[in-house]
Amino acid sequence: MSASDKKQIKVGILGATGTVGQRFIQLLSNHPYFVIHALGASERSAGQQYGKVTKWKLNTPIPENIKTKIVQDCKPDAEGFKDCGVVFSGLDQSVAGEIEEAFRKAELIIYSNAKNYRRDPLCPLIVPLVNPSHLSIIPHQKKTLGLEKGYIVTNANCSTTGLVVPLHALEKAFGPLETVMVTTLQAISGSGYPGVSSLDILDNVVPYIGGEEEKIEWETNKILGGFKDESSPTDFDLHINEDKKLKAINVSATTTRVPVIDGHTGIVSVKFSTSTSPSIEEIEKAFRDFKCEAQELNVPSAPPQAIVLHEAQDRPQPRLDRDLHNGACVSVGRVRKCNVLDVKFVCLIDNVRLGAATSSIMNAEIAVEKGLIV
Amino acid sequence: MSASDKKQIKVGILGATGTVGQRFIQLLSNHPYFVIHALGASERSAGQQYGKVTKWKLNTPIPENIKTKIVQDCKPDAEGFKDCGVVFSGLDQSVAGEIEEAFRKAELIIYSNAKNYRRDPLCPLIVPLVNPSHLSIIPHQKKTLGLEKGYIVTNANCSTTGLVVPLHALEKAFGPLETVMVTTLQAISGSGYPGVSSLDILDNVVPYIGGEEEKIEWETNKILGGFKDESSPTDFDLHINEDKKLKAINVSATTTRVPVIDGHTGIVSVKFSTSTSPSIEEIEKAFRDFKCEAQELNVPSAPPQAIVLHEAQDRPQPRLDRDLHNGACVSVGRVRKCNVLDVKFVCLIDNVRLGAATSSIMNAEIAVEKGLIV
Amino acid sequence: MSASDKKQIKVGILGATGTVGQRFIQLLSNHPYFVIHALGASERSAGQQYGKVTKWKLNTPIPENIKTKIVQDCKPDAEGFKDCGVVFSGLDQSVAGEIEEAFRKAELIIYSNAKNYRRDPLCPLIVPLVNPSHLSIIPHQKKTLGLEKGYIVTNANCSTTGLVVPLHALEKAFGPLETVMVTTLQAISGSGYPGVSSLDILDNVVPYIGGEEEKIEWETNKILGGFKDESSPTDFDLHINEDKKLKAINVSATTTRVPVIDGHTGIVSVKFSTSTSPSIEEIEKAFRDFKCEAQELNVPSAPPQAIVLHEAQDRPQPRLDRDLHNGACVSVGRVRKCNVLDVKFVCLIDNVRLGAATSSIMNAEIAVEKGLIV
Amino acid sequence: MSASDKKQIKVGILGATGTVGQRFIQLLSNHPYFVIHALGASERSAGQQYGKVTKWKLNTPIPENIKTKIVQDCKPDAEGFKDCGVVFSGLDQSVAGEIEEAFRKAELIIYSNAKNYRRDPLCPLIVPLVNPSHLSIIPHQKKTLGLEKGYIVTNANCSTTGLVVPLHALEKAFGPLETVMVTTLQAISGSGYPGVSSLDILDNVVPYIGGEEEKIEWETNKILGGFKDESSPTDFDLHINEDKKLKAINVSATTTRVPVIDGHTGIVSVKFSTSTSPSIEEIEKAFRDFKCEAQELNVPSAPPQAIVLHEAQDRPQPRLDRDLHNGACVSVGRVRKCNVLDVKFVCLIDNVRLGAATSSIMNAEIAVEKGLIV
Repeated sequence: MSASDKKQIKVGILGATGTVGQRFIQLLSNHPYFVIHALGASERSAGQQYGKVTKWKLNTPIPENIKTKIVQDCKPDAEGFKDCGVVFSGLDQSVAGEIEEAFRKAELIIYSNAKNYRRDPLCPLIVPLVNPSHLSIIPHQKKTLGLEKGYIVTNANCSTTGLVVPLHALEKAFGPLETVMVTTLQAISGSGYPGVSSLDILDNVVPYIGGEEEKIEWETNKILGGFKDESSPTDFDLHINEDKKLKAINVSATTTRVPVIDGHTGIVSVKFSTSTSPSIEEIEKAFRDFKCEAQELNVPSAPPQAIVLHEAQDRPQPRLDRDLHNGACVSVGRVRKCNVLDVKFVCLIDNVRLGAATSSIMNAEIAVEKGLIV
Repeated sequence: MSASDKKQIKVGILGATGTVGQRFIQLLSNHPYFVIHALGASERSAGQQYGKVTKWKLNTPIPENIKTKIVQDCKPDAEGFKDCGVVFSGLDQSVAGEIEEAFRKAELIIYSNAKNYRRDPLCPLIVPLVNPSHLSIIPHQKKTLGLEKGYIVTNANCSTTGLVVPLHALEKAFGPLETVMVTTLQAISGSGYPGVSSLDILDNVVPYIGGEEEKIEWETNKILGGFKDESSPTDFDLHINEDKKLKAINVSATTTRVPVIDGHTGIVSVKFSTSTSPSIEEIEKAFRDFKCEAQELNVPSAPPQAIVLHEAQDRPQPRLDRDLHNGACVSVGRVRKCNVLDVKFVCLIDNVRLGAATSSIMNAEIAVEKGLIV
Repeated sequence: MSASDKKQIKVGILGATGTVGQRFIQLLSNHPYFVIHALGASERSAGQQYGKVTKWKLNTPIPENIKTKIVQDCKPDAEGFKDCGVVFSGLDQSVAGEIEEAFRKAELIIYSNAKNYRRDPLCPLIVPLVNPSHLSIIPHQKKTLGLEKGYIVTNANCSTTGLVVPLHALEKAFGPLETVMVTTLQAISGSGYPGVSSLDILDNVVPYIGGEEEKIEWETNKILGGFKDESSPTDFDLHINEDKKLKAINVSATTTRVPVIDGHTGIVSVKFSTSTSPSIEEIEKAFRDFKCEAQELNVPSAPPQAIVLHEAQDRPQPRLDRDLHNGACVSVGRVRKCNVLDVKFVCLIDNVRLGAATSSIMNAEIAVEKGLIV
Repeated sequence: MSASDKKQIKVGILGATGTVGQRFIQLLSNHPYFVIHALGASERSAGQQYGKVTKWKLNTPIPENIKTKIVQDCKPDAEGFKDCGVVFSGLDQSVAGEIEEAFRKAELIIYSNAKNYRRDPLCPLIVPLVNPSHLSIIPHQKKTLGLEKGYIVTNANCSTTGLVVPLHALEKAFGPLETVMVTTLQAISGSGYPGVSSLDILDNVVPYIGGEEEKIEWETNKILGGFKDESSPTDFDLHINEDKKLKAINVSATTTRVPVIDGHTGIVSVKFSTSTSPSIEEIEKAFRDFKCEAQELNVPSAPPQAIVLHEAQDRPQPRLDRDLHNGACVSVGRVRKCNVLDVKFVCLIDNVRLGAATSSIMNAEIAVEKGLIV
C-alpha cells in the first residue's frame, strides 16, 4: 500500500471543540494517512460552524477548511461518522463512556484519549512508543462483543505516558523493574480549559491532582505487562500478575500542579529486580539506543528519537524541551545513583501531544500499518 | 531576667543589603530582645546610607531609622560591631567563610545563615524547632579555638529545615527513621537577588539546583544526630555514625526550581527502622502534638504550632500557607501510605523566614534564654 | 459616642462565600465598630457551616468563630439579618439587583460592592477617599422610596477607584480636569474565583475586560461630580452635566488583564481645564499633601496617607506596594510631563481591599460617624 | 539572479552567543540567501566551540554544524569575517559602537540590531515593513566616510517596530498623523539574558524600562520621515522637521514590563492631521489591505500579511498570536473610537523576531534584491 492510498482514510473527531479535540484538528489537518471528515461536540455546538462555537486556544490558526465545517452531535448516525475509518475521541470522561460505547456498537473504530476504557480487560491501553503489540487483543474484543468491525483502543494518562517510555527502555535493556517512585510537576494544560483557575496556580504549587496518582500506579503495570498466552491474546497478563514471570512493579506516585503551560516533568527513582543494578553509563546508553516498533514501522508521527537523553545537568526543562521532535518524544536527563533505590532520573513529556492527541494518532497509524484500520 | 532587660542586646547584621539581610532588618526592627546597632555590607556600600544603597525588595517599607543608618565594612573593628551582643550573618557563601572567622577571632558571636561552617565539627547546625540542644557544644568550640566569648552558630539550608522538622517529630514519636526520599519544588527567592533569571523560570521548571541535594542529604543527619557523649558535648554523633545507636538515615533528594516567589514544597516518603510502621492516624497525631524546646522556652519567634497539619487534601500550598504563624512553622499535609516506603506526606516551609532569617534569630533567642548571649 | 459603644453594631454579609465576601470576613473579624452577625450565600450553601461550604482562598485562616457559623439564604427574613445595623454585599451582579432591593424594602441598610445600583440616580456611588459627601442624598433616597430606614450605598469599580483618588487630589488642588487617558493592567483577582483560566493568562496579556472600560469612563464623572443644589441634595450634578460649572471629563480607558494576583496598575495621562498646567513639583506636592474626609473623621479603615507618592522611578509595583497601609491607599509614581496631554503618572490600587471590601467598610464607618448607621 | 545564486552569500554574526545572536543563528541556519560563515563573541568565548560556550535558550536545538564552529573575536580581521557579504550584529550597546565602526572601516557591511547608530544622520533606521526606501542613503554614507563598500544599517527598537507598522499603514491610507499615545506591556525577553530577575517580575508589573520611552518617541519620527530631497538622499527629513510638509508626530509613550516571555503589546491611540477622521471600517480596511515593499520584492522573510487584523475583541494576545507568520508580522485588534484622540487599537509584535533579528535579516534580504549586498 503506497502513501497516496493511505491518504484516503476519513476520520471523525469526538469532543472536537475541547482542548484535546483542537489538538486532533491541528495534528490531523495535513496528515499523510488521515483526512478530517466529521466533527462531533455537545448539543450546544451541534449544527453550527466549528469556527463559531470553538474557543480556539492554540497558537496556530484554525485550518481554513475546518472553520466553516458544521459540528455534529456525538452520535454514530450523525452525518459523516459512518464513513469514517477511525474516530478519535477527545471526549471528557463524564460522557466518553456512553458515547464511545455507542460508536463501537455501531461498528465504528475508536481511538480514545479518555480514561473510561483503559482498565477494561478487552481494551488495549497503548503508549505508541511502548506496547503497540497489545493491539493484538482487538480480534478478541470484537469477537467477545459480537462485532465485525467496531472496537476501542485507548491511550494512557499523560503523565503515565511520560513515565513508561523510559521505564520500558530500562526493562528492555535490563529486565523487570521492581520499584518505581515518581513525583510529577504537571502543566496546567493537563486539566483542559478553563481547567485550573489562575488564582490557584500563579505563584503557587498545588500538591494534589484528583485521581492522577492512582492512574499512574495502575496504568504503568497494564502497559508494561503482556498477555497470559502470547500466541492467543485474550487475557492481559499485567505486570501486576504475581503468579507469572512478571511481578507487580511497586509504583508510588505523588502528582503536583505547577505554573507551567505545557510539559509534565517526572522525578523518577527506580529499582531493578536483578541483584546488581546496571551502571549509570549503561543506563544512559540504554536510553540513547532505545528503538521502538513505531519507529521501525516508520509511521508519520513516530519521532526520530523516542527518548532524547540530555547531557546538561539542568535539563530537561518544559519550556525549552517540550517541542523536541514535535512533542512526540520523551526527554530524559540527570541520570544518577539514588541513595535509596538504584537510579534516579528526570523525564519530561509534552502532555498535550505525546501525552494525549499524538498518542491516539500514532496508535491509529500503527493500526493502519497492521491492517487494523482500513 | 525580665523582657525589658533583654531588650537591650545590640545586634549587628552582616550582608545587610542582601535578600537575607533585608529580612533580618524587617524581623529585628521591633524585636523584644534585640536592637539593630550595626549594618555591614560590601565595600561598595560602606560609608553610605542604607536606604541609598539598598534595592529593598520586601513588601513592607524600610524602617525609618534604618534608612539613614550608615553601612559599615564587614570588618569586626568597623564602627558598632564591637558593641554587639550578637552578629547575624546573611553573607553570601563566597565571602562568609573569611568574614565570619574574622568576627569570631575578634570575640564576637555569630549566628549565621551561610553554609560555610555548617559541616565544621566545632559548630552546631541548628534548626530552632529541632535541635537547640546542640548549642551545648559552644563551650567546646570556644575552648578549642582559645576564645573567651566568640563563637559561630549556623542554621540549616532552607529546604533541609522544612524537611527535618516533620522528620524530627516522627523520630520523637516513633523512633529512628531508616530511609527518606524527598523531591523539592523550591521558590525563586531561595537563590537571592537577582538570582534566577525570569527567562529561566517563567512557564518552566528547572530540575536542578547546584549543591542543594547534597546539603539536604548531609545536613539532615547532622541535625537529627546527637553527641558521642551527651554529658560532655565535644563530638557530634551524627545520625550517620554507623557504630552507634543511630544509624545513618538514607536520604535521597532531588531539588527543583519552580515559578513560586516564596515557599519551598517537599514531597516526602519515609521508612521507619522499626518493623511495623505507625498508622496514618498515629502519624497525624504525632505531627499535631509535636512540641519543641523553642516553644517551651517561649522565645519571641517561636510559633504557637511548630507543625501545622492541614486537613484539605490539596494543601499545603505555598501561596496560601507560607504566611502561617508569620512564616515560623512548617506546614504538613497529605499524610498517606506509600506503596514503596512506609508513609508519604507533603511539607512546606517559608524559605525566607523559618528557612533563613527567622531560624538565625530564633536560635539566638534560645541562646539568650540559655545564657549564651548576654 | 465612644468606641466601645460603636462596637455593638451587628453586620450581615451577602455573598459571604465568594471572593469579596471572604475579604469582608477577614477585614471585619476584629473590627472596632462592627461585629459579624449573619452570613448569606446561595441556596446551595444555606443551612451549612461556613467552613464546610467555602473554598477559602485568603492567606490568613478563616476566623475560628466564623468557621462553624451557619450560612443563611440571602433573604431579609433569614435568621439574623433583621438585627443588623448594616449589611455588606459582595454579591455577584447577576443576583445583586434583586436581593439588595429586597433587603432595602425590608428596611435594611446595604453597603454594596456590586455594580447594579451604581448608576441609580437615588444611590450614591462613593469612593471613601473621595466623595463621602454624596452620602447626603440618602434622606432623599429613603423619602422617594417611602422607606424609614432602608437604603443602598454603592462603592465604585476597583480600577475606577484607583484612578479617581489621584484625579480628585488634582482637581482639589488645581481645578477641573478636561481630559483623562488611562490604560489599566489589572490583576486576576479582579474577576473573582474561579475567574480567569490559568491557560488564558500565564505568559500572556488579555487586552480586554468586558464592560470595564465603560465603567471607568462613566463612574469617574459621577464620583467627581456634585449635586445640582448642594443645600438640597436630590439630584446628582454629574461631572458630565454640561450645562453647569462642571464639564464632562473626557475619559478614554483601555483595560487589560495581566498575570498579577492582586493590584491594578493604571497608566494615566491628564489635561487640566486651565490654560496653564501646574508644574511637576506642584503636582507631586498635591499628591503628597492630599487629605480626605475619611482621614479627618479618623475612621478605623482610613489610611494614614490616602496617596503614597513613590520616588523611585520604577514604582509603584503591584507585588511590592499593594500592601501599603493595609491596602487602603493608592500609590502614585512616575509623575512627569506628557508630550500630548499635560502630565502623566502611574497609579496602583489593591483591587481586593480599597478596590472592593475596604471601600464598602470605610463608607459604612463614615456613615456611622455621620449618624447614618446606628 | 536566481535563488540558487543568492544562496552563496556568506554572513557573519556578532554577539553570536547572546539572545539576539542565537535568534540570528536559528533564523539563518537554513536560509535561501545566506550561509553562516563566521561567529563573533567576547574574548571569553573566542577560540572555543560555539556549543561549549553558549547558554542556548531557544526551544529548537543548536544546528549541528554550528555547535562545533569556533567562535572568533569581534574583530574584522578575525578568521572568516573578511569573506562575509554581510555581518549581522546582535551586540550589546555597550560594545556595539566601537566594534561596528571597526567593521565598517574594514569595508564590511553591517546590519545591526544595536541602538548605537540609529540616530546617526548617515545611517538608515529601517523597519523592513515600513521604510526600506531609506536604504538609498547608503551611497551618501559610504561617500562621506570615504568607504568603497562598508556601511551600517540599523533596525529599530522592538516596541517602536511594533508601533510604526500600523502607524505607517494609517499614514499611507489617510495622510499624516498628528498625535500618538502608546502604553506598552513588554515581554521579559526584551531585556536579554539573564535580564529581568524573576523576583522583579513574577506576580508583578514594572512600570518603567530605562530609555525605552525616549526610543519610541524619537525613532518613530525618523522611521516615518523621508529625505529633504528625495532625488538626492543625503539628509533625512524627519517627521519631526517642522518646516516641511511633515510635521512632528507628537508621541507620548509609557513602557512597562509584564510577566510575558515573548511579545510586546501596545495600547495605542492616534489623532490624524486631517480635520475629519476616517471611520473604524475604513481604518480596519487600511490595516487589512496594507502591503509593503518587502512583500512586493517577495524576500524570504516577508510575511504573507504585514498586518494581521484580529476580529475577536480580546485579541491580539502575546501567547496566542506572537507566532503568526513566523513572528514576522504585526497583529492589530480592538480598533475603536477614542473619547480623547481619534481612534484606539491594540498592537502586538514578536519582539525577538520582527522586533529584532528578523528585521535585520529582512533588511538585508531587501538590500540583496536592491544590489546593496552582493
